[in-house]
Amino acid sequence: MAKMDLEPMMKPKSVAIIGASRDPDKVGHVILQNYVNAGYQGKIFVVNKNADSIMGFKSYASILDIKEKVDLAVIAIPAPFVPEALEECGKAKARTALVISGGFAEVGNKELQEQLVAVAKKYGIPTMGPNCLGIMDPRSRSDTLFLPTYKLARPQIGGVSFVSQSGAVGSAILDMISAEGFGLSKFISYGNAAHIDEVDILEYLMGDDSTKVIVMYLEGIKRGREFFRIAKDAGKKKPIIVLKAGRTNAGMQAAHSHTASLAGSYETNIAAFLQSGFTVADDLNDLLYYAKVFESEPEPKGNRIAVITNGGGIGVITTDEIAASGNLKMAEFSKQTVDALKKTMPVLVNARNPLDLAGDADGKRYEDAISAVMQDPNVDMMVVVTLFQTPGADSSVASKLIHYKERSDKPMIGIAMGSEYTQIHKLMMESSGFPVYDSPAAAVKSLSALLKYKEYKQSH
Amino acid sequence: MAKMDLEPMMKPKSVAIIGASRDPDKVGHVILQNYVNAGYQGKIFVVNKNADSIMGFKSYASILDIKEKVDLAVIAIPAPFVPEALEECGKAKARTALVISGGFAEVGNKELQEQLVAVAKKYGIPTMGPNCLGIMDPRSRSDTLFLPTYKLARPQIGGVSFVSQSGAVGSAILDMISAEGFGLSKFISYGNAAHIDEVDILEYLMGDDSTKVIVMYLEGIKRGREFFRIAKDAGKKKPIIVLKAGRTNAGMQAAHSHTASLAGSYETNIAAFLQSGFTVADDLNDLLYYAKVFESEPEPKGNRIAVITNGGGIGVITTDEIAASGNLKMAEFSKQTVDALKKTMPVLVNARNPLDLAGDADGKRYEDAISAVMQDPNVDMMVVVTLFQTPGADSSVASKLIHYKERSDKPMIGIAMGSEYTQIHKLMMESSGFPVYDSPAAAVKSLSALLKYKEYKQSH
Repeated sequence: MAKMDLEPMMKPKSVAIIGASRDPDKVGHVILQNYVNAGYQGKIFVVNKNADSIMGFKSYASILDIKEKVDLAVIAIPAPFVPEALEECGKAKARTALVISGGFAEVGNKELQEQLVAVAKKYGIPTMGPNCLGIMDPRSRSDTLFLPTYKLARPQIGGVSFVSQSGAVGSAILDMISAEGFGLSKFISYGNAAHIDEVDILEYLMGDDSTKVIVMYLEGIKRGREFFRIAKDAGKKKPIIVLKAGRTNAGMQAAHSHTASLAGSYETNIAAFLQSGFTVADDLNDLLYYAKVFESEPEPKGNRIAVITNGGGIGVITTDEIAASGNLKMAEFSKQTVDALKKTMPVLVNARNPLDLAGDADGKRYEDAISAVMQDPNVDMMVVVTLFQTPGADSSVASKLIHYKERSDKPMIGIAMGSEYTQIHKLMMESSGFPVYDSPAAAVKSLSALLKYKEYKQSH
Repeated sequence: MAKMDLEPMMKPKSVAIIGASRDPDKVGHVILQNYVNAGYQGKIFVVNKNADSIMGFKSYASILDIKEKVDLAVIAIPAPFVPEALEECGKAKARTALVISGGFAEVGNKELQEQLVAVAKKYGIPTMGPNCLGIMDPRSRSDTLFLPTYKLARPQIGGVSFVSQSGAVGSAILDMISAEGFGLSKFISYGNAAHIDEVDILEYLMGDDSTKVIVMYLEGIKRGREFFRIAKDAGKKKPIIVLKAGRTNAGMQAAHSHTASLAGSYETNIAAFLQSGFTVADDLNDLLYYAKVFESEPEPKGNRIAVITNGGGIGVITTDEIAASGNLKMAEFSKQTVDALKKTMPVLVNARNPLDLAGDADGKRYEDAISAVMQDPNVDMMVVVTLFQTPGADSSVASKLIHYKERSDKPMIGIAMGSEYTQIHKLMMESSGFPVYDSPAAAVKSLSALLKYKEYKQSH
């Protein structure tokens, strides 16, 4: 299949919303509303033959009535009418189309879906969906997601592109991302993959400069061979994180019933992912953990980790996780570091790794510790634990961490666990590019993945 | 060793704070302040020879000057002065003592610690610590934690007692618990375990009626044989969840340096835990996941799970987790359930497990689904996924779930993932006794643990 041009779909300069509606309960209404709310800078065209104007926009009876070629036609009308609407998009030379509507192969209407694909092919119009949420691009502020922002918060601009076949998984993760400190390049929910599929999307994202990290939730892979041919090149170029559903027979059956996709052998897929340098996630939360570390952190030079903590127990657990990780190990501080620490630390603090700064550690103590440890040639990466429950830990500590993080060319991530006071500081750190994890296990598995990816690139 | 009477320590009717202070930076100040803020109903005595009164309380020069026997003497003064203060507690016939102060075995001052233990034994005064946060009991409102509530939120009253050798791990988990819907019976941070150790605490909690579930974070076990003798009985009586630090050599060394405890062989300990019916956690978050399900859920009758979801993809992932769990499986709906669902569900919804209610499911559809499935004799437990990002999911859905949860004698837990809108509803459900998890993996591993524990009890 020839490479599709998805640029007009991903960063559209003009959008036609077919099925835009005045009724706030209609999908077409929410989509139009979101374009307006997001401050979309391109041109918006509204298509609905039963109205003269909707929300102040002139309403066209058909896309054929619009005098210019639109970049993206978003179709949100009942399934039986979709092929005809796409036909009109083809005639109107719309550059791309996105079918939000469900009611196709996922409910047994294979014929209707084939009809849709036939139209897409006839006009050579790259068509996403049906049965999908569509696309959100925070840069161009194009947002076809029919979920209101009070329910599904939109993330900030960043380097992570997230691809999900499932709209539900996609929306939940997108909402979770919005609460994290890292940002989004593109969100793509592609549904039944009748025309545009994961191969086309992966190919596009590989060439997309604003995408630094690709995260995929996959139920099935339709064109496995092509997918992995492209993936192999992609793995060297950008980190790709994947969660594959259907790893059990029961899950495979459920996936088939969900998006009419054949999941293929899980083991075969995973083996191919790993061979292509993908980072394989075991659970939804892993997708976020890995995305965060890959977006913000530089390549590690080696596998030796320093742990700095104001809570001894968390230092112990983090040490356990590092020793059990398989590819990481605890750094041994150089003599210079030990000497520096002995000079600056109180007597209670032992100058060894994990470095337990004690429960009364304040900004100054963290500063003295980090400035010494980050220069140590025996240290490749740093994990900084901050229990904000302790008396000395406050915004001054967070500020110091951010200060040194900006000056570090080594991966440096945080661990902080707790409720409000902690969450405020976590957000403060993450917004400044300091990824913070909510458990030692999450932090360490993320650094482990970062190192694995670097080793893959070196050996391929 | 004879069984210690810890009741006056855990639910003190009177407290003497030795080292109470006017200086807000002093530990003794924060402790006194917390007792006042918590609305402690017992008597508070302040001991500080350098003051006449502190925060409106008459200040005694020594505990010996107090005319009545106090239930609990909290000692927060510099380490060198602690043995003498404990000596006075002994003479004053204080029923129990708790040494907050650090500066003992954990920093090499073994002699000072031995001195302390000698005094405790001489007077037969059960002494907790040193180097600990102490105890919080939300029922009696006794709270020796020297961490202010704006940094460390205090959980609501409930059935989970949490025991941590490490103050840092303890405070972080306590703060995390406060953001969850389940409540606390006791929080116990026992530090160096010089006199009172994990055996005494476990023994106490076994007999404590308000403790339904015991959660322990352990670095070392001092009296292994006695611990497991007691644990064996305990495992049959109450669920005990344990996280053991030091599972690697590096972690073991770090643990030793932290609380001067010898961790013992991890494998040996874990084998003994499992034999005693403990639920073993792999990570900090697991402690919360398991505590939640054990606190609120009834015993499952069997291993067949029904999954109800408004997001097909999460249904697939949950199915994968169930099939991979080792002891759970997907239920097959009875003919009666299938018929009932066919009557009430829209055509798009397939009457099979996982039951995908589709993205537009509202309160009515959840109600129809749950009321049919919960009566199915083929269903032993239920997982209800609610993606609050979708158009139909709102407080009405949450209310329906709470309604049926109250009427269910089968375990029923939720999965919801997302930011603010989701968190509000999660809290609403959890406050009503409906545990909600943030990932399929967390939910399924919790039900798996619940079933394992039930099977342990049946076979012992």
